[in-house]
Amino acid sequence: MKLDHLGIAVADLDVALEFWRDALGLELTHVEVVESEGVRTAFLPIGDTCIELLEAIDDSSPIAKHIAKRGPGIHHICLAIDGLQSKLDSLNSAGVRLVDNKPRPGAHQMNIAFLHPKATGGVLVELAEPGDKA
Amino acid sequence: MKLDHLGIAVADLDVALEFWRDALGLELTHVEVVESEGVRTAFLPIGDTCIELLEAIDDSSPIAKHIAKRGPGIHHICLAIDGLQSKLDSLNSAGVRLVDNKPRPGAHQMNIAFLHPKATGGVLVELAEPGDKA
Repeated sequence: MKLDHLGIAVADLDVALEFWRDALGLELTHVEVVESEGVRTAFLPIGDTCIELLEAIDDSSPIAKHIAKRGPGIHHICLAIDGLQSKLDSLNSAGVRLVDNKPRPGAHQMNIAFLHPKATGGVLVELAEPGDKA
Repeated sequence: MKLDHLGIAVADLDVALEFWRDALGLELTHVEVVESEGVRTAFLPIGDTCIELLEAIDDSSPIAKHIAKRGPGIHHICLAIDGLQSKLDSLNSAGVRLVDNKPRPGAHQMNIAFLHPKATGGVLVELAEPGDKA
């Protein structure tokens, strides 16, 4: 298991890049619009993980809702895992509350599922595995 | 630069371990009380980074204040960096607001400094380097 990325909700992606890329010195590898999630995302690798900046492109985006409720800041963490469905089944059996009982398609040809923040002590945790392993 | 750890404020460390260690399957490597910060911390490595669970041991702890204000969840991220003082100087010159203008001793013989969340888009960012490099 590894930390695939750390998702940070930002109000303005270009302003956020002034800190994370320009001041801190991380490399920006690419920017991608994910219409289905209503976000524009920027990826900045760090070690074997990645900082993903998330800017809402419409008011119904989960990122817009997060910023309206809690302000900008860390939105979720994503753990890369093999055997996603069996992990979801075992978490469910252990009484861990899930948002997604089954993997669904995410960005980058990954299958993803979210756990409920109530189950994790307030952290929105995404689990992901490459789509060809599902 | 790498993501040294991800600090998560938890209300109860033993309950949090039921999720992060027992259900999710991460390994707990050690638990440490840091009296100066008013916390009991648990370390769970994942890839080349680490999840650090933080439980307040008194009401004046920054973790107690964080939970009172925002609830449990991600408290800070720590980036390991070489040349901490020169990075602080360059950030300061670039107008990035700092909590610590100079490195101070932290846990694990690291020298640390925090940047101000206002400068980072709502994320409390700690920079750290091994104490013998300061």
